[in-house]
Amino acid sequence: MTIAKWDIFEHEIKADISGNPYLDAEFWGVFSQENRQIKVPGFYDGDGSFKVRFSPDQPGAWTLRTVSETPALDGSTASFDVTEAREGVHGPVGVHNRFHFAHADGTLFAPFTTTCYAWTHQPLDQQEQTLKSLECGAFNKMRMCVLPKHYPYNENEPLHHVFELDENGKYDPDSPNFEAFRHFETQIARLGEMGIEADVIIFHPYDRWGHCFWTEEQDFRYLRYLVARIAAHRNVWWSLANEYDFMLDVKPMDRWDRFFSIIEEGDPYRHPKSIHQGSPSNCYDHRKPWVDHVSIQHFDTVQTAQWRADYGKPIVNDEMHYEGNIIQCWGNISAEVLVHRFWMTVMKGGYAGHGETYSHPQDLLWWAKGGELRGKSAERIAFLRDIVEQDATHGLTPFEEIEGTKAWPSLGAARDGDVTYIYLAEHQPVIWSLGLPPEDGDWEVDIIDTWNMTITPAERVAAPVPVAIKHAEKTRGGKPDAAFGIVLPGKPYLCVRVRPKAN
Amino acid sequence: MTIAKWDIFEHEIKADISGNPYLDAEFWGVFSQENRQIKVPGFYDGDGSFKVRFSPDQPGAWTLRTVSETPALDGSTASFDVTEAREGVHGPVGVHNRFHFAHADGTLFAPFTTTCYAWTHQPLDQQEQTLKSLECGAFNKMRMCVLPKHYPYNENEPLHHVFELDENGKYDPDSPNFEAFRHFETQIARLGEMGIEADVIIFHPYDRWGHCFWTEEQDFRYLRYLVARIAAHRNVWWSLANEYDFMLDVKPMDRWDRFFSIIEEGDPYRHPKSIHQGSPSNCYDHRKPWVDHVSIQHFDTVQTAQWRADYGKPIVNDEMHYEGNIIQCWGNISAEVLVHRFWMTVMKGGYAGHGETYSHPQDLLWWAKGGELRGKSAERIAFLRDIVEQDATHGLTPFEEIEGTKAWPSLGAARDGDVTYIYLAEHQPVIWSLGLPPEDGDWEVDIIDTWNMTITPAERVAAPVPVAIKHAEKTRGGKPDAAFGIVLPGKPYLCVRVRPKAN
Repeated sequence: MTIAKWDIFEHEIKADISGNPYLDAEFWGVFSQENRQIKVPGFYDGDGSFKVRFSPDQPGAWTLRTVSETPALDGSTASFDVTEAREGVHGPVGVHNRFHFAHADGTLFAPFTTTCYAWTHQPLDQQEQTLKSLECGAFNKMRMCVLPKHYPYNENEPLHHVFELDENGKYDPDSPNFEAFRHFETQIARLGEMGIEADVIIFHPYDRWGHCFWTEEQDFRYLRYLVARIAAHRNVWWSLANEYDFMLDVKPMDRWDRFFSIIEEGDPYRHPKSIHQGSPSNCYDHRKPWVDHVSIQHFDTVQTAQWRADYGKPIVNDEMHYEGNIIQCWGNISAEVLVHRFWMTVMKGGYAGHGETYSHPQDLLWWAKGGELRGKSAERIAFLRDIVEQDATHGLTPFEEIEGTKAWPSLGAARDGDVTYIYLAEHQPVIWSLGLPPEDGDWEVDIIDTWNMTITPAERVAAPVPVAIKHAEKTRGGKPDAAFGIVLPGKPYLCVRVRPKAN
Repeated sequence: MTIAKWDIFEHEIKADISGNPYLDAEFWGVFSQENRQIKVPGFYDGDGSFKVRFSPDQPGAWTLRTVSETPALDGSTASFDVTEAREGVHGPVGVHNRFHFAHADGTLFAPFTTTCYAWTHQPLDQQEQTLKSLECGAFNKMRMCVLPKHYPYNENEPLHHVFELDENGKYDPDSPNFEAFRHFETQIARLGEMGIEADVIIFHPYDRWGHCFWTEEQDFRYLRYLVARIAAHRNVWWSLANEYDFMLDVKPMDRWDRFFSIIEEGDPYRHPKSIHQGSPSNCYDHRKPWVDHVSIQHFDTVQTAQWRADYGKPIVNDEMHYEGNIIQCWGNISAEVLVHRFWMTVMKGGYAGHGETYSHPQDLLWWAKGGELRGKSAERIAFLRDIVEQDATHGLTPFEEIEGTKAWPSLGAARDGDVTYIYLAEHQPVIWSLGLPPEDGDWEVDIIDTWNMTITPAERVAAPVPVAIKHAEKTRGGKPDAAFGIVLPGKPYLCVRVRPKAN
């Protein structure tokens, strides 16, 4: 058998084991290449089928041998060959350059996130529509829940219950619905083929099926099972929760810490792990070493550079309020404001998240269920993404962290390699110099209109003297900031880009 | 002689005193009514003229006797009668209800500030134009510097030098130009007649005349002199500095503390005192007891409620960036953004400041020199001011401080008496209930379009259920927030106002 690097090798054992194999039958696969061994958990997939999955990170010959205290699951072997990765497959994502991400092959990954919490729980035709909508190119990361959601606009029954229902209509924590997991995996794989990372949300408080009340043991078992099943998908990210702090009454803090180690125990690929809070005052301590990146929820995106300084790891602001018009304040900002927050976040060296919440007679809200994108922000996010990806080399570093530059808090100014961006946000000067090169040279200077999605070469003028003059005898007085200035049209939400001219 | 309450009684002594009376001749006036005595400093006004001024706060008979170690200034007497205040004169402003201001007669004063730093230093016809522009009704407080300003867009010579120039073109700290002070007082008085408070900025770093480098003794003398001259004007406020922290190298911190006490020693009217910083990291400690209100400079106006909590006194955000298009980021935001920041500040229980900085071929920028208002924010600020004043009873308290209300950080929701405002900022819901009355009743509910300046009665609908449902067994589930909802047009920058119907 042959698979490509970063694809999935799956080994199945059929065995008739008494009792509940979900509870009792543990086994592992030990995957070996030369003197390297990687041990991954297997899982029960119903109907006497036991599986173990592996995503190899090296081409060449690999072997497998299973280990288990259950004789029927012990000592099963397989071997397979691994070729180079398929075209367009770059491997799992990890933290890179401290504040950024890259695929295993070194390709920089700048997440542009959207959120469809319960899209895999909707009717199949709507799921197809979601995948179709994602072809817009705005997004390369999707936040999505394993468990269905009970919440306003999320009142329909899920396509598949994730666990079997007991006599009270609650989930039986001992009985996973294997079909539900298989379906979830299919959709992760389909996202993967589209180049979209699946930010898998493991727990959440919006529950009418009782999973919030599971015991520690039941939670741990569910988590181990999920990791064993899906970790081999190269595009998985682990989001411990949406709004974990709203469950602290039923899942106390030490359990959340333990969840992180359970993932580490079962995931040899070290997919990015994060946790997402609801209330700003209940922030999980993102500085803990097992948190790979900060998954924050905050509308005040000018603070992004400060969060980098506070946490020293990538900042992903997954919820900055959503474009929409529903009654909830987190779901009714204009497209203009959301696009502005995207630019501000990215140009302060962070990563941003989108959601769409326009009220709909059948409660078909993108943020809840996927389906159709109705707003105006997505295509502008695609435009931003294209700009960032065009010149991505190390990821963006905000002026706040670059010596010799002058940061201004309400601007988003950043540099990636030799490309400088100054996002002017609500500022509308008619002449500009901050961030322009101190020495003249062969620079291409463009004015990007973030809303109208135009890129226009800037007209140069003599360097202005914007320096504040302070009791003149003692200060440097009127030295220009830059070798030249540019003329701007005097409207807000522009970005100035400076890069060396292509030869 | 008869004057009205809160007008100015002035007593003059002509005396030929050798040396420099500015340095050497101290005297005070002791103003008495029955068993009450108020001692105020006099001042030299040039040409052998010594004056002492007083603004009585009680009608009836008053007497004056001067005291001095200089015999020619000692023991001079006068008596005068004081009538009730003239129509429209409400007396000096002081802090009221902890976070607000009121005139001495109890009339609430909600400051709507504008800034024309050097308007009194411009040609007279331009000063007339400034006063004419102020008739727009947007502003009732003007920030203005005693000393002329040296800064980009502020390069012309002042109408009057405030001190005589020495041979190097620097101010001679021992030689005030009496004419300059008289002119400054005239303009304070004219603002007073228009109902506009003069927020007098005493020091600032933007200097080519050398006043930044004055010694402690020279600074103290200038300050005592200024207080003696102008404190009797009922509309004076004391702003120790614009951007005091940019002068800490030449005027260290203990001097700033002492400035406050010097004002207290010479100002029996206790006009509001504040100090204004440049950099957020160099904030003077506004919690010091001699600081009456916080004069802050910050663009991030959603923090206003937090500043109330931090400082426990009125918050006046005098510089939230200005409407304009110059290169400096503090001077190039759109009118839309400035109007939004005004609403946000006011609806979080603070007070806001305006300035206008449109580049102009002759550098005629309102913020610098007054003159003509060219922007679009002033008339909208007048609209806001009118709304606030219509229903002002105690001043606005933000939901953040009102038990039983639900604050949302990116909204500006507040209450004054039985009137509630919910400023929706960038939110654009099509249905709304937060902040609406929990019990039905005879309420008038209006939708205020803050940009288009319209007020429209709201259409009522059944109370929506905006409550987040969180593991359903344990929480209250779907109880509506309010007795009814309203329909909104789904556009940003609206404010919902709820007040009892007028009978």
